[in-house]
Amino acid sequence: MKPVCLVIGAGAGIGGTVGKRFAREGYHAALCRRSDQDGLNKLVADIKAEGGDASGRLLNAVEADSIENYVRAIESDVGPIEVVVYNLGAQIGNRSLQDTSYKAFEMGWRIGTFGLFRVASAVCPLMEERGKGTVLVTSSTAAVRGNAGQHSHAAAMGGRRMLCQSLNAQFASKGIHVAHILVDGAVDAPDTLGKMLGAEKFRELRETRGMENDGLMLPGKMADTYYHIAQQHRSVWTHELDMRSFTDLAWWNH
Amino acid sequence: MKPVCLVIGAGAGIGGTVGKRFAREGYHAALCRRSDQDGLNKLVADIKAEGGDASGRLLNAVEADSIENYVRAIESDVGPIEVVVYNLGAQIGNRSLQDTSYKAFEMGWRIGTFGLFRVASAVCPLMEERGKGTVLVTSSTAAVRGNAGQHSHAAAMGGRRMLCQSLNAQFASKGIHVAHILVDGAVDAPDTLGKMLGAEKFRELRETRGMENDGLMLPGKMADTYYHIAQQHRSVWTHELDMRSFTDLAWWNH
Amino acid sequence: MKPVCLVIGAGAGIGGTVGKRFAREGYHAALCRRSDQDGLNKLVADIKAEGGDASGRLLNAVEADSIENYVRAIESDVGPIEVVVYNLGAQIGNRSLQDTSYKAFEMGWRIGTFGLFRVASAVCPLMEERGKGTVLVTSSTAAVRGNAGQHSHAAAMGGRRMLCQSLNAQFASKGIHVAHILVDGAVDAPDTLGKMLGAEKFRELRETRGMENDGLMLPGKMADTYYHIAQQHRSVWTHELDMRSFTDLAWWNH
Amino acid sequence: MKPVCLVIGAGAGIGGTVGKRFAREGYHAALCRRSDQDGLNKLVADIKAEGGDASGRLLNAVEADSIENYVRAIESDVGPIEVVVYNLGAQIGNRSLQDTSYKAFEMGWRIGTFGLFRVASAVCPLMEERGKGTVLVTSSTAAVRGNAGQHSHAAAMGGRRMLCQSLNAQFASKGIHVAHILVDGAVDAPDTLGKMLGAEKFRELRETRGMENDGLMLPGKMADTYYHIAQQHRSVWTHELDMRSFTDLAWWNH
Repeated sequence: MKPVCLVIGAGAGIGGTVGKRFAREGYHAALCRRSDQDGLNKLVADIKAEGGDASGRLLNAVEADSIENYVRAIESDVGPIEVVVYNLGAQIGNRSLQDTSYKAFEMGWRIGTFGLFRVASAVCPLMEERGKGTVLVTSSTAAVRGNAGQHSHAAAMGGRRMLCQSLNAQFASKGIHVAHILVDGAVDAPDTLGKMLGAEKFRELRETRGMENDGLMLPGKMADTYYHIAQQHRSVWTHELDMRSFTDLAWWNH
Repeated sequence: MKPVCLVIGAGAGIGGTVGKRFAREGYHAALCRRSDQDGLNKLVADIKAEGGDASGRLLNAVEADSIENYVRAIESDVGPIEVVVYNLGAQIGNRSLQDTSYKAFEMGWRIGTFGLFRVASAVCPLMEERGKGTVLVTSSTAAVRGNAGQHSHAAAMGGRRMLCQSLNAQFASKGIHVAHILVDGAVDAPDTLGKMLGAEKFRELRETRGMENDGLMLPGKMADTYYHIAQQHRSVWTHELDMRSFTDLAWWNH
Repeated sequence: MKPVCLVIGAGAGIGGTVGKRFAREGYHAALCRRSDQDGLNKLVADIKAEGGDASGRLLNAVEADSIENYVRAIESDVGPIEVVVYNLGAQIGNRSLQDTSYKAFEMGWRIGTFGLFRVASAVCPLMEERGKGTVLVTSSTAAVRGNAGQHSHAAAMGGRRMLCQSLNAQFASKGIHVAHILVDGAVDAPDTLGKMLGAEKFRELRETRGMENDGLMLPGKMADTYYHIAQQHRSVWTHELDMRSFTDLAWWNH
Repeated sequence: MKPVCLVIGAGAGIGGTVGKRFAREGYHAALCRRSDQDGLNKLVADIKAEGGDASGRLLNAVEADSIENYVRAIESDVGPIEVVVYNLGAQIGNRSLQDTSYKAFEMGWRIGTFGLFRVASAVCPLMEERGKGTVLVTSSTAAVRGNAGQHSHAAAMGGRRMLCQSLNAQFASKGIHVAHILVDGAVDAPDTLGKMLGAEKFRELRETRGMENDGLMLPGKMADTYYHIAQQHRSVWTHELDMRSFTDLAWWNH
């Protein structure tokens, strides 16, 4: 029975690509996302076409029991979850305080912070029993600095980072490795950046900054580091790291 | 008409004492807390006995519209809110992940993060119109590092800090000063630490560490710094500061 | 006998102004700076004209024994040093790595880091014996983030901050309060900013950003906070704080 | 001609092991250390025995021109330096301020900060011309927090970290990747930890915490991450990461 890599937020960017990478390394990739059954099917089919093992489910992570039921189903039907990739973003673009509704602020927290708490609550006790497990958490610059227009996003991500530290503090010695991966730049991801910018602008951005210039972060290359972190020997675990393109200044410089 | 200092979380520790201090300096202290009408009455009476101006209301900050209605009432009945002291704690003691219910985790966020967002949403537009205002936010070590058993508290406080930075980024240039005050130690506060420890243990702690040894943070002395920060000239605003007793190592040392 | 406030780096900006402020509060201001005997004389005369007590000495802080001898002289001839304001800057403007000579890099360290170590070595044991003392350290954004062209300055200031934390860790419980004051903006200081920009540009900057716009940090207002920090009760010491004009974004936002 | 990986501080712990790893991947390992010609010879011989390519030199990094001459010699005799591993430690054990001589404090800076500046000054312009290069900097907890007894070490490491950020800010866009690797725990390294503790205590520590318990960081496993970081695609560079054993709490928790 293959170990399972559960990806929460498996779109065509980081999530799906990291899932593919783990499948290539012998994991069953259990993929979920909120919408786009076709996209999900294609991802699963691509993995299988490479000889890998995968399955998927559409689920709304903010709905009660959605994540919890999926975890239960995987554990009973597929195999033990060895790796979780928590990859849900909560970026809603820049909005002033006045334009940030209570609902939007709460939604940021539900996706950005509470969802991670829920999946950790479901998975960590199982991992603790098995004496090992890895939780890779995609995070963002907003986890370490607030910014105008980022009221909801920054509050959610700040919570996410502190939760990662708390999980490590309780679980590292039990063999569970939680890594907070600060993605400090624009990712070449059609499902997130692409949708935020619109097709035209995204194409333009890819042509000017991406491609050979490597000014957009390439998900396939990010997956190399995600996989490396998951494979670190337990005597040398990384809890926090950042990533950005060589063309970008670090967040502390702009 | 006196300017108003609104204190959210006005118990016998930091909140009430800071309220008293602002009243002494010519502010009307508008005090609210969740329970203990007698304690609230006493606080108001004490301020009036000193010749100050104060009023109070019991309110449950997590209830819809509670904070918002109070802000509205003050603005129409008492005067313009010039200073907000957001002083609600979300510490629930050390609990493992398994012992932290979804409800407890959400409550942490509602008190620790969302309440500040709500009061800022209600007050900042008014302050912006008036071209000035101050928001003093009591925060804690959990805002900058997670810890075992602090899943709920750290996530809430991490969100609080990032929200403070976002508020400053949007509003500082409009004349609104938001200060994140990291309280890195035990406060000599009967309503919070006292209740958490129980009367007996609290008395003992005060006798061994507090009093002349000054190993507990004295609310009256904290109020000096709260007041100073609120009076800083706008050319020299402090956004973040920490406070601890001389007997304590800083959080980064333990 | 008055307690002494020793200011290392007492020009017409932060240093001299803070010295004046402490003199006004009853301290003897012992002022030193590298050059400009006239400027120093004027500062001392101004303080005396206000009824305060002051003395001064030109000294080159990077020279062996310069600081140490001055400390000894003060302690034997004037009185016990109760407060040290370490206010030497090490900013040399933006220089690429290739344009930063070994000598410039070392000079940054001698002024930025080693000088503080030397004065602490001379003063802290005396303060420890007396059971109290305060060291106020002017620092800068470069203490918390490096930047292009800041190789020398950032390395020096990063060392300065870590040294402050180490001093607090050893000496806080002995009654010595070390405060790291991160000055995150341009100061309205003719002796530093003024000289860096030249008279013409400095005048222009003052007229556009300073004066009524308060976009330059006013040394007199900074001195209020320096003095407040030095007066904090030992149960509520601040170790680190930042300061900037309301017109500026915090360093983490640009 | 093989690309060169220059290791400054190539003892039997991190440095030598990382050198071996790069040799295994096709680099010429150019190894230097202060003393122990036999140890250095053995390291070179071990690499050659594996079919790798290596050379070595004893040099005292604090001596003028030592590093610079070695860089020149490698570039002219061996090949282009593609990777630098700066691995000199400046830990001198816990010493109070009074027990830290000026000389010890300066030595900390010479090894901890200035040496990195010197090697960067020698190598970065060459890398910039070639459009690529990697500088891996071993760092320590003292780079992010001071501590009692760490006056020299923390000041040196704080400077080291800020210098890394400055180098990235200037050189990342030129294709040079600088990574600050925060080693937050005890390393299973006979030449450093072993010498600090003495043979007996070190053996004991290895037996209780190391070996199967993995409570000491294993250099061979660290080398995996050093190598991974050096191979990251330029669209996804990590500037800062931490590493520790699963048995250790993160520095922010103790």
